[in-house]
Amino acid sequence: MGGDFGPEVTVVAAARFLENKKDARVILVGDTERMRPRFDGDADRVEFLHAEQVVEMDESPTRALRHKKSSSMWKAIELIKRPGAQAGAQAGAQACISAGNTGALLAISYYLLRTLPGVERPALITELPGLNNSVYMLDLGANIDCKAEHLLQFAVMGSVLVSALTDKDKPRVGLLNVGSEEIKGNYLVKEVDRQLRKMSLNYVGYVEADQIYQGGCDVVVTDGFSGNISLKTAEGAAAFIMHHLKAEFGRNMLTKTAMMAAAPILQRVKTTIDSRRYNGATLLGLQGMVVKSHGNADEVAFEHALSVAYAEAQKNIPQMIDVKLEQMLAF
Amino acid sequence: MGGDFGPEVTVVAAARFLENKKDARVILVGDTERMRPRFDGDADRVEFLHAEQVVEMDESPTRALRHKKSSSMWKAIELIKRPGAQAGAQAGAQACISAGNTGALLAISYYLLRTLPGVERPALITELPGLNNSVYMLDLGANIDCKAEHLLQFAVMGSVLVSALTDKDKPRVGLLNVGSEEIKGNYLVKEVDRQLRKMSLNYVGYVEADQIYQGGCDVVVTDGFSGNISLKTAEGAAAFIMHHLKAEFGRNMLTKTAMMAAAPILQRVKTTIDSRRYNGATLLGLQGMVVKSHGNADEVAFEHALSVAYAEAQKNIPQMIDVKLEQMLAF
Repeated sequence: MGGDFGPEVTVVAAARFLENKKDARVILVGDTERMRPRFDGDADRVEFLHAEQVVEMDESPTRALRHKKSSSMWKAIELIKRPGAQAGAQAGAQACISAGNTGALLAISYYLLRTLPGVERPALITELPGLNNSVYMLDLGANIDCKAEHLLQFAVMGSVLVSALTDKDKPRVGLLNVGSEEIKGNYLVKEVDRQLRKMSLNYVGYVEADQIYQGGCDVVVTDGFSGNISLKTAEGAAAFIMHHLKAEFGRNMLTKTAMMAAAPILQRVKTTIDSRRYNGATLLGLQGMVVKSHGNADEVAFEHALSVAYAEAQKNIPQMIDVKLEQMLAF
Repeated sequence: MGGDFGPEVTVVAAARFLENKKDARVILVGDTERMRPRFDGDADRVEFLHAEQVVEMDESPTRALRHKKSSSMWKAIELIKRPGAQAGAQAGAQACISAGNTGALLAISYYLLRTLPGVERPALITELPGLNNSVYMLDLGANIDCKAEHLLQFAVMGSVLVSALTDKDKPRVGLLNVGSEEIKGNYLVKEVDRQLRKMSLNYVGYVEADQIYQGGCDVVVTDGFSGNISLKTAEGAAAFIMHHLKAEFGRNMLTKTAMMAAAPILQRVKTTIDSRRYNGATLLGLQGMVVKSHGNADEVAFEHALSVAYAEAQKNIPQMIDVKLEQMLAF
C-alpha cells in the first residue's frame, strides 16, 4: 500500500513509469477503491488486485508472517510465484516493489520465495553514486550477523548483478574493511579475504570506507550491520553539508544574491547526490525479484525503484545468479 | 618524528601552539638536528630530546614493540611515565601527541602506560561536527572485535571526557545501531543496550548512523570496526560532495563567475566540515594521555591535535575516568 505516503505516491509513480516504459505492465496491489481514482495512465497495461489487509510500518515481521496473509504485501509477493510469472504473463509478476515495512518484506519474501540453491541469506543491494562510475554495495541491513560463506555469496551475487546491468564483464569486487594497515579487520573480514582470493571473481581486495565513493571498485561487499552504518552515515553527512550550504547562502542579502547565481550549480550537485535517484534496493538471492523502496519515497524516487525492478526483470537476475553460483561455488 | 611530513609540519605547529597557549611547554622528540633549525618560537618553553630510531609508517606493531625502544615514539610515550609527569614538570610530560604509525602507537602506549583499573581496552575518541553541537564518537578503530563490557567502559569514558571538556554535566550517550525497527542490531548491541539502561549515565538509546551529525546526542558509542567505517564514510561522502561542487563551479565562464560570488560561502562551509579542525583522536583509558593526529596532518591540523592534548591535560582526564569508573562499575 505504499510506505509512508500510500497510493498518492505509488499509484502516481506507476502511471509515470508506464508512460516511460512502453513494454511494461503493472499490477497494483492494495485497496482498489483508494488506488483506482488515483491512476491516470495507460489502462491497458495496469491491473488492480484488491487486498483487505495492510502490514503496518511498525509491525513485527513475525506478526506479519502469522496474521497478514491477506495483506497487499503478501499478495504482491505471491504474484511472483504464480504460473507464468517468469514470462511476465498477466497471471503473475516478474518482480515485486514495495515501500512498506522492511523487516516484514524480508520475512515474507524469504518465506514465500525461498532462496536460490547455494544462497543461505538474501542480501539488500543498491546503487550509489561514485566519482567515475556507480558503485553497488551489499548487504545493507538484511543480515546483521554474517558468516564468511554469506559474504562470499554476496560477492558472487553482487558481481552477477553489476555485470548484468552494466557493460562490465568482470566487475571489480572489494571487501569493506577498516583503514589502518596494522589492524586489518576482524576475523570475519580476514577469512572472507582469504576465500575471495581463491575464487574467479575480479577481487580487488580491501576497500576503506572513504574509498567507496571514489569509484575504485564496482561492488562493495560487507555485512548488513556495517553496510547499513555506512549507507546511513553517508546520507547523514550529505544532509549535514546541504544544511550548512543552505544556511550560509541564506545568511544575508549579499549571500542571497550569491545564491541566485549559484542556484543552478547547487541544484546539479544536489541531483548528483539525490538519494531519490538511487532509490530501490534489490533483495538478491531469492527465487524471485523483490525491490525495496524507501518508506518516505516520493513519486520520483518510487518511479526509480520501479525502473530498477524493470531493468533487473529484463535480465532475469535470479536465474543468472543461480547459474553463476553453481559454477563458482562448486569446489 | 611527525607522520607523513615529519618535522616540517610538527615542529612548525609546535611553535604556533606555544604562541597561542602561553602556559604550555613542549618537548620535541626526534632527530634534533632536523628539528632545531625548524623551530622558530619561544625557546624558553621548548626542549629537544634526541631519538636515533623512527617507527616507520608501515612497520608492524609487534616489530616496533620489539626493536624500536630508542625511537621517538617510544621515548615520547615514556616521558609520560617519568616522575613529575603528572605535574607537567620539565622532567616529564602530561601528554604525548603523535602523527605516526597508529598501530605502533596503540601497542607501545598500551605496553608502557597500561590501562586504568576497570578498563580492559583503550579506545580512540574524536570530536565531530554536529548540527547544534559537537558530537564525540568512540571507538574509532583501536578495538576491532569488542565485547559488551568494552562498550560499557567506552560509554563511561566518553561521558567523562565530554563532561570535562564541555559545560555538559550529563552528556547524552547513544549507542550506534542499524536503522530498521524490525532488525534492531546484533547480539552485542542488544546486550550493551540492556546494560546501559541499568547504569547511571544519561543514556538516550540507539542512534542511527544518519543521526550522528544531527546533534541528538553528545557521545556515540560503537565498536572500532563500525566506528572506523562510519568516520571514513563521512570523510569520503564529504570529499565526494566537495569534488562535485568544485567541478560544477568550474564548468564554464558563467559558473566561474557564480563561483566568485559564492566563494566565501563555500569556504565557510568547507571550514565547518574541515577534518583538520577535528584532528586529534584521544586514546582513552590509559594511565596517561596519548593523542593521535592524522598521518597527513598539516600545521593547522597538527596544532589542533596539540590543543586537544592541552585541554585534556588541564583536566587530567585519566584520573577523572579512574574515579568515575570506580563509582559506576562497582556492582
